[in-house]
Amino acid sequence: MKHDLYEIIHRRRDVRGEFTGAPVPDAVLDRILSAAHAAPSVGLSQPWDFIVVRDRALREAFHDHVRSEREVFAATLDAEAAARFARIKIDGVLESTLSIVVTYDQQRGGPAVLGRHAIADAGLYSVCLAIENLWLAATAERMGVGWVSFYREDFLQGLLGIPAGVRPVAWLCLGPVSELQKVPDLERHGWSGRRPLHQARHDDGWGNRPSTGGSAQR
Amino acid sequence: MKHDLYEIIHRRRDVRGEFTGAPVPDAVLDRILSAAHAAPSVGLSQPWDFIVVRDRALREAFHDHVRSEREVFAATLDAEAAARFARIKIDGVLESTLSIVVTYDQQRGGPAVLGRHAIADAGLYSVCLAIENLWLAATAERMGVGWVSFYREDFLQGLLGIPAGVRPVAWLCLGPVSELQKVPDLERHGWSGRRPLHQARHDDGWGNRPSTGGSAQR
Repeated sequence: MKHDLYEIIHRRRDVRGEFTGAPVPDAVLDRILSAAHAAPSVGLSQPWDFIVVRDRALREAFHDHVRSEREVFAATLDAEAAARFARIKIDGVLESTLSIVVTYDQQRGGPAVLGRHAIADAGLYSVCLAIENLWLAATAERMGVGWVSFYREDFLQGLLGIPAGVRPVAWLCLGPVSELQKVPDLERHGWSGRRPLHQARHDDGWGNRPSTGGSAQR
Repeated sequence: MKHDLYEIIHRRRDVRGEFTGAPVPDAVLDRILSAAHAAPSVGLSQPWDFIVVRDRALREAFHDHVRSEREVFAATLDAEAAARFARIKIDGVLESTLSIVVTYDQQRGGPAVLGRHAIADAGLYSVCLAIENLWLAATAERMGVGWVSFYREDFLQGLLGIPAGVRPVAWLCLGPVSELQKVPDLERHGWSGRRPLHQARHDDGWGNRPSTGGSAQR
């Protein structure tokens, strides 16, 4: 079966409200994790791990924590923003089929990781590349992924027994969805909009815009 | 034209020695940058920018800097590792057609970026997701990408006039290649090997291995 890369990249969404809770077949989960594990990594260090969380008590404990962090954030907003925020669902921890926590082992492959001597965060970058592979593979499999970032790292570390020196990078809700939204939730709810690509494009130095809108004419 | 996601994910390589220097058509570069720009981002902040570097003088200056950082790293190695390292090509800055520097704007979308109050690095993570989209799209287009990380961020900031508060995250060499290696360079050169996926997999807590090797039987 063919899964077209560009179609997947542009269809992919960050899912909160559309999880159905239907099963994720083992073979599908294996393909998704294999895709993540095939990501590039600095010095071939592969510093990621994947903790598959299905246990209901663990997910409920995490969900309670997310709810309290939501309150912490809401308290920083002015009244108008707080009202908009109140309408936004921030996680599908309980409705999704399972979650995958992705971690970063700072010691893996060390101490002499080729390419990491000058950039301390290079290993962390590698973990994120694996996360995007995972997300695209799940989208190809007609599943949804929702990255929940309303949590404190030390809480998650304690909850899942993650050792010192290993840092949780993402809690990803995963599972079948009723649909993927055409427009991102935060845009639909008027929280923020997307910027056009040409504003993000520079040629041969910061602030030099391509001669014709968005296209490289040279 | 169909570009199969899984085929691309598993064929993708970090390229050093196989760049041909052949042109990158504008339409191809546009598709690659559009793919990067379609990545997920915390609070829909899209904190990335893309600086396309074709200027020869800029690339030579960067290449000289990379060479000196290579020496810095080599000096930290013992004799045996240094001998292995001496055989490894670490960049294709001059041979590739162009480079793309990807940056992270820490202020974009701020101060109240939804999902970033608890995790300061969440914006940085978003930038890396865009990089992986870029890499996969380039692979789909039969191009190669090589992430060069032998540099100091402040050097690159000065070279390209990147303003304070914006952090360079990656220098990516891009262009047509003679081939993509089947086995990663660092593995072929005996620098490091890949770990099997089942070692990276945990169930419902750190260190709990799936009941049957790599597969989720439940």
